[in-house]
Amino acid sequence: MKKVIIHEVGMRDGLQVEREVVPTETKIKWINELISTGMDIIQIGSFVHPVKVPQMADTDLIFKHFSESESKPVNVILSGLVLNEKGLERGMNCGVEMFCMGASASETHSKKNTGMSTDEAVIRIINMAKNAMSENKKIQVSVQSAFGCGYEGKIPKEKVINIISKYLEADIKNISLADTAGHAYPEQVEDVIESVLKLSDNINIACHFHDTYGLGIANCYIAFKCGVGYFESAVAGLGGCPFTAKASGNVCTEDLVHMFNRMGFRKDVDLKKLSSVSKSVEEFFGREMPGKVYRMGTIDY
Amino acid sequence: MKKVIIHEVGMRDGLQVEREVVPTETKIKWINELISTGMDIIQIGSFVHPVKVPQMADTDLIFKHFSESESKPVNVILSGLVLNEKGLERGMNCGVEMFCMGASASETHSKKNTGMSTDEAVIRIINMAKNAMSENKKIQVSVQSAFGCGYEGKIPKEKVINIISKYLEADIKNISLADTAGHAYPEQVEDVIESVLKLSDNINIACHFHDTYGLGIANCYIAFKCGVGYFESAVAGLGGCPFTAKASGNVCTEDLVHMFNRMGFRKDVDLKKLSSVSKSVEEFFGREMPGKVYRMGTIDY
Repeated sequence: MKKVIIHEVGMRDGLQVEREVVPTETKIKWINELISTGMDIIQIGSFVHPVKVPQMADTDLIFKHFSESESKPVNVILSGLVLNEKGLERGMNCGVEMFCMGASASETHSKKNTGMSTDEAVIRIINMAKNAMSENKKIQVSVQSAFGCGYEGKIPKEKVINIISKYLEADIKNISLADTAGHAYPEQVEDVIESVLKLSDNINIACHFHDTYGLGIANCYIAFKCGVGYFESAVAGLGGCPFTAKASGNVCTEDLVHMFNRMGFRKDVDLKKLSSVSKSVEEFFGREMPGKVYRMGTIDY
Repeated sequence: MKKVIIHEVGMRDGLQVEREVVPTETKIKWINELISTGMDIIQIGSFVHPVKVPQMADTDLIFKHFSESESKPVNVILSGLVLNEKGLERGMNCGVEMFCMGASASETHSKKNTGMSTDEAVIRIINMAKNAMSENKKIQVSVQSAFGCGYEGKIPKEKVINIISKYLEADIKNISLADTAGHAYPEQVEDVIESVLKLSDNINIACHFHDTYGLGIANCYIAFKCGVGYFESAVAGLGGCPFTAKASGNVCTEDLVHMFNRMGFRKDVDLKKLSSVSKSVEEFFGREMPGKVYRMGTIDY
């Protein structure tokens, strides 16, 4: 049976938009709980400037905590987002196992996010990825705003294909399509995925959808039907991108896993534990989260 | 191009679970606004006992208001839900154009809701539908709990097919598949719809999904791809069924229409007006509604 891989990104993409800074010990508690649920990969921080995103200021500390021998988890990969060479260096020094990095298919988003054009950002990302690979690190590169942009609107598919082609030429095969603004809709997802999969027989595509307009789960389902088996989602449906004009939460991990459960996949993930993290997140921020399953329970027949 | 028909059920399926009774003039204001958005059919009440569901106590009054010549809308059908013969009689006396009625595929749900077994309820519904048809009324019959039940869990597809076969034998072609508890998931929807459409070349299938576990829109999308072009949804994502153990809101109308918009359908529906009704609903109940589009705006490119 096809394997569905879940990359939990709530502790990074989820928390980074939250103004109330989560204490390091609370993050560590949540991460430990997430590890125990059976997630495959957990993104636990971003190497961004601590003044720019105070919520991520303890990323090095958290990685150091988990890379210490006694607390290092087995059966799970801990990933970190890096935006530039400085971040990569920080990540190398604190035990990051998997580096995630990306360039935006939207020129405006790219400029606002990195000060670079898309082409410049892609060159930098490829160089950074090669550096990390030469240190035997796992890497994943992404195409941000792959399905539309809060600033520019429509993003031509050719732009996305062009970026992915450059990644493939550089021998980078783990590629994430990120719907940063949440503009994707199922027919578009089908169209983009089919074109991307034609580029190579040796490509691992991940999908990263935001539920801005309520289509996140539908997009995941269609991507899955097209052959994608790797999804990035956030516990409780936390999240959003602070550099995009409009964005709401990531696809909710437990809702997504629950759907796959109903289809017969990933019965090994502990949805009760996942829901308990979401309840704790809800309690911490003092507001109801977008996820449904942590509030409604699961269907177990 | 295929037509997508929207049956707005927020004023009935949406409001009936709300404890705070909406004043009649507020309902009439919301219904008038909904009429102006371009909805095809709007369900404006239920002929249930006023003591059992006080929220629906003014249903006759509202129908009378809209069936009066000066306020009678054109280009929209106003529907009402009837649970029994008494309700049908009330509906006949106050100008209902389209009667909706249904039987549950779950014996437990049927018993709790009507005091009857599924078979008994189906016979009654067919008789009521024939009565309404003989008075030249439009009718729609439904299969409630068609995709699972909060009490019983799994509902065998054969039960659903059996009920629909009886409807078809009675020459009733407008049939709604209602996911009362929100248990449906996309692969199941595909399976059930495909089996149902094989029963007859002359059948109009509507789908009515609840978003209990976050799969409402994904289910609509798959149903659409399987050939269904008729959906029941609620403005703001209001709703749920008070007779089912677990249920949350209906699929949100503006989110659903927004998805169809992105696919090139139903560009005639005024999403700004729909969103404005949702904002008014949010204000009235003093809490954020499940819908996304009324909060995030629309994608217009």
